[in-house]
Amino acid sequence: MENSKRITQSNRDEMNMQRIVVLRWGHRVQRDARLTTHVALTARALGASGFLLSDTMDETIRATVEKVTGSWGGEFFFEMGTSWKSSVRDWKTKSGIVVHLTAYGENIQTSNVLDRIRNLEKDVLLIVGSQKVPKEFFSSEVSDFNVSIGNQPHSECAALAVFLDRFFEGKELVKGFGNAKIRIIPQERGKKTIVNR
Amino acid sequence: MENSKRITQSNRDEMNMQRIVVLRWGHRVQRDARLTTHVALTARALGASGFLLSDTMDETIRATVEKVTGSWGGEFFFEMGTSWKSSVRDWKTKSGIVVHLTAYGENIQTSNVLDRIRNLEKDVLLIVGSQKVPKEFFSSEVSDFNVSIGNQPHSECAALAVFLDRFFEGKELVKGFGNAKIRIIPQERGKKTIVNR
Repeated sequence: MENSKRITQSNRDEMNMQRIVVLRWGHRVQRDARLTTHVALTARALGASGFLLSDTMDETIRATVEKVTGSWGGEFFFEMGTSWKSSVRDWKTKSGIVVHLTAYGENIQTSNVLDRIRNLEKDVLLIVGSQKVPKEFFSSEVSDFNVSIGNQPHSECAALAVFLDRFFEGKELVKGFGNAKIRIIPQERGKKTIVNR
Repeated sequence: MENSKRITQSNRDEMNMQRIVVLRWGHRVQRDARLTTHVALTARALGASGFLLSDTMDETIRATVEKVTGSWGGEFFFEMGTSWKSSVRDWKTKSGIVVHLTAYGENIQTSNVLDRIRNLEKDVLLIVGSQKVPKEFFSSEVSDFNVSIGNQPHSECAALAVFLDRFFEGKELVKGFGNAKIRIIPQERGKKTIVNR
C-alpha cells in the first residue's frame, strides 16, 4: 500500500487535478488476462496514477504493465492481492472518495454526477468490475457514486476510457511520461518513434 | 454487404450526424474472442451503426452481439468474413471515408484531425486493429486519416470508446434503442430495469 498511500497524501502531477486510482475487481486469472491487461494499460495511458488488482494475484499482468511503464515512462504503480474491502476502507480513511463504474448508475451524460465528483476535490478510487459485482458495491458504505457510461451493456475497458477522458478533459492525452525509453511522434502517415536505450 | 450499403446510402438517425461503421481487423478466433466482443459491444453502445469482423468468421461473437441487440434494442448490424480490402474498396466507392485508429496517428487532442473528419460530412469506416496491422493501413490508398487516442500503448477497445464519445459529442449516450426488451433506468444506488418480454 506504500504507493497508493503516497498518492492520496498527494503530490499532484502536471494535470493539477484530483488523482484517480483504478481498482479492478473480479479478475479471473487466465480467462481475464488480456482484458485486465487492457484495462490496466488504459488506466495508465489515460491519466490514472495506479492500478489495484484486487483479491487475487496475477504475475503475468504485473509483468506486462511494469514492462510497458519501464519502456514508455511515467510513474504508474501496480499492486495486487489486497482485498477490495481493505482497499476501500484504507482509501476512505485517507479521505478519498469511491466511484463505481456500472451500467446501472447515473448516466455521465444526462446527470451532473461528474460535476459532483469534481466539486469534492478529492482523490478517486475508481472501481471497475468484470463479472457480476457484489451488491454492496452499490451501497453508500462502499461507493460514493455509481456512474454509467450510457446504460447499455458494453465493456469495462470502454467505460473506464470514457470516464477518464471526460474527468481529465482530454489533458491526459497530452501529458508527458517521464523517463520514457520510447516515444511516439504523432504523424499523419506511418510510424515514427524516438528510442533512448 | 446489404446492411452496410443501406448505411452509406444514408437514412440518418436521431443523432443527425455522419454514420460510423467499425471494421475489426486481425481477430484471432478463440484468443481474441472476449476482446473483440467488447469492441463490438462498445461500437453498438457508443453510437456506431454496425460492425464488420474482417477476414474471418466467428459464430460465437456473432451470436453474442446479436443476442445483445435482440434484448437491448437498436438496429446495429453485424457482418463477418469479408476481406478488409474489399470492404474498404466498397466503402470508398460509395464515397465514405476511412479512419484508422492507431497509437502512431495524429493525436485527437493536440491536432485538429477530428474537425477535419467532421467537416467532410461523410460516413466513416473506422478501422480498429488488434495484432500488428499491415503497413498499407497507414497509406492514403486505405486510410484518409490515422488517428491516435494519446500516443501511448493501451487498448483498441478504449481507443474506440474515446473516439466515438468525442465524435458524437456524448449524444450517443442518450440515444434510444428501439424495440428493446430490457432497459436500465439509471439510479444513484442499486439496479433498476424495465423488462418487456
